[in-house]
Amino acid sequence: MKKLILVRHGESVWNKLNLFTGWTNVDLSENGINEAKEAGKALLDAGYRPEICFTSYLKRAIKTLNNILDVMDLDWLPVYKSWRLNEKSYGLLQGSNKAEMAAKYGDDQVKKWRRSFDVQPPAYEMNDPKSPRQDPRYAELTDEQIPLTESLKDCIERIMPYYENVITKAFENHDEVLVVAHGNSLRSIVKKLRNMSNDEIIEFNIPTATPYVFEFDDNMNIIDHKFVGDPDVIAAKMQSVANQGKAKK
Amino acid sequence: MKKLILVRHGESVWNKLNLFTGWTNVDLSENGINEAKEAGKALLDAGYRPEICFTSYLKRAIKTLNNILDVMDLDWLPVYKSWRLNEKSYGLLQGSNKAEMAAKYGDDQVKKWRRSFDVQPPAYEMNDPKSPRQDPRYAELTDEQIPLTESLKDCIERIMPYYENVITKAFENHDEVLVVAHGNSLRSIVKKLRNMSNDEIIEFNIPTATPYVFEFDDNMNIIDHKFVGDPDVIAAKMQSVANQGKAKK
Repeated sequence: MKKLILVRHGESVWNKLNLFTGWTNVDLSENGINEAKEAGKALLDAGYRPEICFTSYLKRAIKTLNNILDVMDLDWLPVYKSWRLNEKSYGLLQGSNKAEMAAKYGDDQVKKWRRSFDVQPPAYEMNDPKSPRQDPRYAELTDEQIPLTESLKDCIERIMPYYENVITKAFENHDEVLVVAHGNSLRSIVKKLRNMSNDEIIEFNIPTATPYVFEFDDNMNIIDHKFVGDPDVIAAKMQSVANQGKAKK
Repeated sequence: MKKLILVRHGESVWNKLNLFTGWTNVDLSENGINEAKEAGKALLDAGYRPEICFTSYLKRAIKTLNNILDVMDLDWLPVYKSWRLNEKSYGLLQGSNKAEMAAKYGDDQVKKWRRSFDVQPPAYEMNDPKSPRQDPRYAELTDEQIPLTESLKDCIERIMPYYENVITKAFENHDEVLVVAHGNSLRSIVKKLRNMSNDEIIEFNIPTATPYVFEFDDNMNIIDHKFVGDPDVIAAKMQSVANQGKAKK
């Protein structure tokens, strides 16, 4: 049996402050580090044993992965990093408070920016110092590849070539593949795997640092998919993600 | 100019206990983590900017690298791990106290085991539960590749194919290459680069978590080599390594 293990990074210092993060390279909070260790322990306890790992260019995902591997005593596994697994870009919203934006523009507009399929948040200018075009780690990307803002649709379009051509190819030589990434980059993969509609994926929340495992037969047909961990903790985390975009009452 | 940055891992929990470690996968001590962060800061302050990284399969090296990259805000760099960069195997000595072994067998014998060019410590049996043959992370190695014990000569022989065919090839596409490994795996590379005799390399100590940089011209001729950091701290660290194999007075 083949297994694809998807893990959203643990809480970041900006999740905690309820800020739009996107491509901003913020660190894990102490809680996020502990969540990552718990995820590693849950995988270990459930008998998972990944053989190859993929993550984004963003340190909150990389450090979540490092902590998972360390708890599992698998630090030595090969890890491949790609900008294509980065979070959806929130463009100019990055650094703004989600609840403040909701109070200013309304819950519906913020939900569209966060969750609609094809509505893009306001975009960076290419020469904005905060634009990824100005970040040396993305120097190899063409101007067309640099996201100045992204809808979920845009996010899916840049992730899928990597998913199809690199991650799925890993199953030719491996049985268990671990991907540690972000709410929307993982949502892109889940939409594809579960054949969800554009409306369905908007309502689907992936809790932080909670392994979500897809099991496949030898022809890569999905047999099962499930979260790994305590069901009550998982439900509470999913609710917490859903509440982030709402204005404070 | 091309730069090869060599870093020995920070203090491990067994360095601290003065035990022979070799291929035993012990963790960094708190001091070792801080040393790694200091190494990252020293590289940052001196203006280094590695583009690709190599390390061993052992977590004390991997976590030293992770901490260096994190301090340098370079978590996203590609990292390649190989068993060939592991520390010299100390065979059956692994887990024994260096000073106790010196008291039992004499300083000279222990120095030979630690530092002679071609004397091997006593070897594991292939089926010893502690032999690397029984460790799933080395499952892909042939029996001939599995070290049951190693002299520095053996260590050099397994490292050099990786150094010549992989690490040096990285300079075709990169200007700065970072290798985080171990006292003896790095000594193998330094011996080659500095064209040292077997006797000279025995006396050459690489301090923990202290970047040792080789600079090359475009034809890969060595222009300079130097440690990066506070000279007094470096001298004290070198002395500390040299003293480890001596019986306590």
